[in-house]
Amino acid sequence: MTREPAIVVLSGGQDSTTCLAWALRRFAPVDAITFDYGQRHRIELACAAEIARRAGVRRHRVVAVPSLADLGRNALIDSGEAPAALGASGERGLPNTFVPGRNVLFLTLAAAWAWQQGIHHLVIGVCQTDYSGYPDCRAETIAAVERALSLGLDWPLSIHTPLMHLTKADSIRLAIAEGAWEWLAYTHTCYDGAVPPCGVCAACRLRARGFAEAGVPDPLLVRLGVTEAAPPPCAPSAPAG
Amino acid sequence: MTREPAIVVLSGGQDSTTCLAWALRRFAPVDAITFDYGQRHRIELACAAEIARRAGVRRHRVVAVPSLADLGRNALIDSGEAPAALGASGERGLPNTFVPGRNVLFLTLAAAWAWQQGIHHLVIGVCQTDYSGYPDCRAETIAAVERALSLGLDWPLSIHTPLMHLTKADSIRLAIAEGAWEWLAYTHTCYDGAVPPCGVCAACRLRARGFAEAGVPDPLLVRLGVTEAAPPPCAPSAPAG
Repeated sequence: MTREPAIVVLSGGQDSTTCLAWALRRFAPVDAITFDYGQRHRIELACAAEIARRAGVRRHRVVAVPSLADLGRNALIDSGEAPAALGASGERGLPNTFVPGRNVLFLTLAAAWAWQQGIHHLVIGVCQTDYSGYPDCRAETIAAVERALSLGLDWPLSIHTPLMHLTKADSIRLAIAEGAWEWLAYTHTCYDGAVPPCGVCAACRLRARGFAEAGVPDPLLVRLGVTEAAPPPCAPSAPAG
Repeated sequence: MTREPAIVVLSGGQDSTTCLAWALRRFAPVDAITFDYGQRHRIELACAAEIARRAGVRRHRVVAVPSLADLGRNALIDSGEAPAALGASGERGLPNTFVPGRNVLFLTLAAAWAWQQGIHHLVIGVCQTDYSGYPDCRAETIAAVERALSLGLDWPLSIHTPLMHLTKADSIRLAIAEGAWEWLAYTHTCYDGAVPPCGVCAACRLRARGFAEAGVPDPLLVRLGVTEAAPPPCAPSAPAG
């Protein structure tokens, strides 16, 4: 079977890492693109590079987007404000971790690179199940962006969102099924940028809840010696296609 | 009448300058945003600043977008290749002056700034009448981008394109009607970046044809002493709204 090439938007978190594993079983070659938009926790960029290396992607590009930090200050960028608790909302009902237009911008830049390389497939780890008030993670938004970019580039693009309708626990089960188990040990989630993770911020609690519901230990915590070592969970090979 | 605020995408060319004048009669306050994406002709940025100053916009921001130069090399960015002649097409039938995703990216960043400021209106000088193979200038693309951004930001945005269905000559008539006549003397069009303009590149010829069809001299050429001084054309006041 001849596979088509794809580009994965890789942030260095568990969701995009799961998507990378998912893509590697369905597309070839796979490239990864990571955006440096002035995020407070530079560790995310190091995690993305480490995961790209372990996954053996063809190319991994880190693209600087200074303008986003400039135009859309928020709690993930501007270190003066702490990210809000899970479910809390700030201005206009959106969490203060909302970076306006972030995923639209990332997909636009990924699409420009795809066009340049003759690639039709983009993969991104957005999810509306654990929808925390991010309007750019909804299926409806992604479909509209897919259409806007396909028209704007005159180039048919498919934006794949394998996590869109999964719970956090289901995402973890998918990661295991797709062979991403070991890579999750190198992902970063904590809003506080702490290593080991703080365990109390909204992002840490969401992650912990997912692993608890999936019934497996978090390999990051195992690697860091925070929780006891456990045998890797059973990893059935995922069906391709 | 209370007017709503708007942001105009200002490149420093005659089309965006005309749009700025159009916006100033319909919105208040008006901000302008210019993108530095590594364009070969830095003079465009100086022109945009001069026009913003003359027009008296509330704020003029110049936003660096290094990633576009990085991801989408083409003849307007990479100085190794000359822009193609008018109507000539390069890779995949597109002119080699096509920067993939340029207008989608610009509108996304302008929308992020609009969201931050509580603004619902964007104005951009794209035009599909003189459509030279730029898919991101079509009305269909702009409508799709408007929808994608409104959904992605959860914020209703209107993208106004006053030149969309005008010929170049009609655009010049609109500039005169909107009071932009004098500002056109400070715009830049030439692909060669020459001052006075080269007069032979595709962009210069399109501009010259527009002024010829509109039956007025180009105020830039008048200012530079290339053509004879002429009285400014009659500038009827445009209807507001």
